[in-house]
Amino acid sequence: VTLAELAPLIGGELIGDGSVEIRRVAPVDPPGALQAGDITLAESEQFFEKAHASNASAIVVSFEPPASAKPLIRVKKTTLALAKMLSIFHSVEKLAAGVHPTAFVGRDVTLGNGVHVGPNAVVKDGASIGDRSIVHAGAVVGERVFLGADCVIHSNATLYRDIRLGDRVIVHSGSVIGSDGFGYVLDGKTRVKIPQVGTVIVEDDVEIGANVAIDRSTLGATVIRRGTKIDNLVQIAHGVIVGRRVLFAAQVGVAGSTTIEDDVVLAGQVGVAGHLRIGKGVVATAQTGIPNSVDAGTMISGYPAIPNRDWLKASAIFRQLPALKKRVAELEERLSELEAKR
Amino acid sequence: VTLAELAPLIGGELIGDGSVEIRRVAPVDPPGALQAGDITLAESEQFFEKAHASNASAIVVSFEPPASAKPLIRVKKTTLALAKMLSIFHSVEKLAAGVHPTAFVGRDVTLGNGVHVGPNAVVKDGASIGDRSIVHAGAVVGERVFLGADCVIHSNATLYRDIRLGDRVIVHSGSVIGSDGFGYVLDGKTRVKIPQVGTVIVEDDVEIGANVAIDRSTLGATVIRRGTKIDNLVQIAHGVIVGRRVLFAAQVGVAGSTTIEDDVVLAGQVGVAGHLRIGKGVVATAQTGIPNSVDAGTMISGYPAIPNRDWLKASAIFRQLPALKKRVAELEERLSELEAKR
Amino acid sequence: VTLAELAPLIGGELIGDGSVEIRRVAPVDPPGALQAGDITLAESEQFFEKAHASNASAIVVSFEPPASAKPLIRVKKTTLALAKMLSIFHSVEKLAAGVHPTAFVGRDVTLGNGVHVGPNAVVKDGASIGDRSIVHAGAVVGERVFLGADCVIHSNATLYRDIRLGDRVIVHSGSVIGSDGFGYVLDGKTRVKIPQVGTVIVEDDVEIGANVAIDRSTLGATVIRRGTKIDNLVQIAHGVIVGRRVLFAAQVGVAGSTTIEDDVVLAGQVGVAGHLRIGKGVVATAQTGIPNSVDAGTMISGYPAIPNRDWLKASAIFRQLPALKKRVAELEERLSELEAKR
Repeated sequence: VTLAELAPLIGGELIGDGSVEIRRVAPVDPPGALQAGDITLAESEQFFEKAHASNASAIVVSFEPPASAKPLIRVKKTTLALAKMLSIFHSVEKLAAGVHPTAFVGRDVTLGNGVHVGPNAVVKDGASIGDRSIVHAGAVVGERVFLGADCVIHSNATLYRDIRLGDRVIVHSGSVIGSDGFGYVLDGKTRVKIPQVGTVIVEDDVEIGANVAIDRSTLGATVIRRGTKIDNLVQIAHGVIVGRRVLFAAQVGVAGSTTIEDDVVLAGQVGVAGHLRIGKGVVATAQTGIPNSVDAGTMISGYPAIPNRDWLKASAIFRQLPALKKRVAELEERLSELEAKR
Repeated sequence: VTLAELAPLIGGELIGDGSVEIRRVAPVDPPGALQAGDITLAESEQFFEKAHASNASAIVVSFEPPASAKPLIRVKKTTLALAKMLSIFHSVEKLAAGVHPTAFVGRDVTLGNGVHVGPNAVVKDGASIGDRSIVHAGAVVGERVFLGADCVIHSNATLYRDIRLGDRVIVHSGSVIGSDGFGYVLDGKTRVKIPQVGTVIVEDDVEIGANVAIDRSTLGATVIRRGTKIDNLVQIAHGVIVGRRVLFAAQVGVAGSTTIEDDVVLAGQVGVAGHLRIGKGVVATAQTGIPNSVDAGTMISGYPAIPNRDWLKASAIFRQLPALKKRVAELEERLSELEAKR
Repeated sequence: VTLAELAPLIGGELIGDGSVEIRRVAPVDPPGALQAGDITLAESEQFFEKAHASNASAIVVSFEPPASAKPLIRVKKTTLALAKMLSIFHSVEKLAAGVHPTAFVGRDVTLGNGVHVGPNAVVKDGASIGDRSIVHAGAVVGERVFLGADCVIHSNATLYRDIRLGDRVIVHSGSVIGSDGFGYVLDGKTRVKIPQVGTVIVEDDVEIGANVAIDRSTLGATVIRRGTKIDNLVQIAHGVIVGRRVLFAAQVGVAGSTTIEDDVVLAGQVGVAGHLRIGKGVVATAQTGIPNSVDAGTMISGYPAIPNRDWLKASAIFRQLPALKKRVAELEERLSELEAKR
């Protein structure tokens, strides 16, 4: 690809010689690894100097660049340019359409155009798989599951029966969608299982990491709305509704029937209790424990969760508690002395 | 099913016309979704009014009902009635007995009556699978594993060699039972693996969620006693003994050689250190970290865990720490002033 | 095995009759379970008395033993002797070399001597598997994966394409290595996936527990250095570098681009934020949350993490906060009184 071809593909403006050929995108660190044919990225002048001194053939910049001996592409956001260039230079291997001879596909299954079902994968009766979707080795797609177009179900992932995924949904290996919710009722001393007869609906453009668990609802549906991204080892209980463009970092857990509104961000290992409403745009820092509903737009921390600013201040004093206790004891002593003398 | 037939099946008393036909159980919310042929549930007068105004044909109530134009079934506990009705109206699909042609079953395997082994499942040499048990697609049952009757091993679950499950045990997808405990010993600077030659015993009526990990013991056995229910992504280390009717919510972790007595409840993300005894009926709220043994019947919270009541009070003051510190500083100033004047 | 043969195998000194035959190693508790032919272990005089009174034929001791009617082997460390004896008495079943007929092996795959590929396992095009390595049932080895010698990939584990494992690496069931890192960039309101084109490198003698997730790097590599041991359900994000001889207990999570230096120990459920450096030999107790880099050799606790000693003291006062607050209120009252009287 020449620079002149690349610039419009990444939404950037070419500065300098457009005929330079680019074969690879590579990070500016370590600069010694950069070679002729590489394009690298500089978010600031500091990185620009490193990039300019390296053997890279061109640089993507997101600021007003100084005079440069190398050709440049100027963009608004280097990370977005990186994402686009990685798609261009590292194209995903094209898997041959068709069902691998070792896979098992049941009765009444609908396979769209260009669908790939990998070795030892299983697609059960009545499932429907949209155009160009991929079911990798050892993955199991349950009875009557509906998969949209351009989905990727990675190896050894499991989709239980009767659930529905939209278009461009990615499910990484080991993840389980549609397992039974954790619901029991006591009959004397015996716990009776409440049959979990609901479903899971995953909308378009959702990505689900590795070894995630998303339970089906008791009745109705557990829902993950469009554009939401879920990292590895996350737990989503039955009846949870997750809004649009939500981010769950790794090891987050959300208990049953809680609603997470659009654009919420939960950092790693955050836990959310059941039957709550987490308002639009709430951000919870890592390991936050959320026992109550949270108003939209709040940034929270701690366990139990409080506003992040309060938590930062209180946490700073927490470690000084021994000193604070000593000060109180000293005050008591001084005051007693004073009282005695009065 | 007519109401007259349904009432005894759910242990309830019929009030009104028993000839009404019921085809579905549905929640009272949203009432607009209820149709003729539905039965719904009302735990309180508020829900009863909604249910009564809807198109549902009958209502299950757990209190002294007002006069009703609709026929009713009166029960002690609506959730128990719900569990029973869901079993009646949503019967589980009956899987054909037999070994799927794509499954692999090793030598000296004992398969009970009505056993189903699904596509691409693996049952290794010497395993024994009780009557009517199901091994779903892609699940692996290791050498000499003993599975009781009426078990369900969901897709892509893994049972390592030489472990024992009782009757009516359910293991959800992605769960791993019998992996090696985390045991090493230093030989100079090198960590030598301690072979984990023990086993795992899971008693009757245990349900294990998705992506759970239960390690085999170094020697002896990791044990999960009857009636215990384990949610998704839980970690149970080697040599742990979990009593009867215990509940572990999602993402709980229990370290090695700890004993959890009967009827303990650990909420989501609770962690328990190794070599402890958690007494009968202990309840730990979400994210509690338990570094020491706990007396029976205690409710605990926090990290390190303290009695829940103390934790609630202390947590309320935690967020006021900046104010408290300021008050101490003011006291010091006022006292110094007073001392100077004396 | 006779005692005389056993003593040098476990690096110990024989005391007494070396002709005694040993058939099993068993723990001293319960002593009633010990039989003739057993060897047991005693770390202290208390255990020695129990062992001596039992039916065991011999005892391994790690201290100057009293006069004994039973033959003994004296070692430096009983746990190390246990590890060695377990390897001797519980030898791992030897799996037949070869590819199981139900497994699928792609094109251009290199299989070393004595490699075992189990039922319904999948080894994709271009993979290379070293001598004596085992790929168990249902495991998936991706395209061009390089596996060293004497590795064990347990059932239903997944190795994504183009990753590299050294010699003697063990990966337990359900674990996923090489899934995409959690990387997105906003393009307006849409999150664009940053292609994760890097790799994962796992060096020699690493053991990875069940249901672990290790993501591939965006560019470059996620690295786990030699001798590191990782327990179940651990999350390692893209671009993380984990040093040598590190221990991660269960449910630890490490966010992207963080470096964990050699000999670090993270206890259960510890979380580490991204882009940090955790210095050599750092120890973090269970559930610690680490938001900043940590100096080598520090022991830390709490959330946010502080030195363990400070945390212990502060935690002890945390639960007394209601009393402390009351003392401050009393001081205020007494002081006001005094001020009024002045």
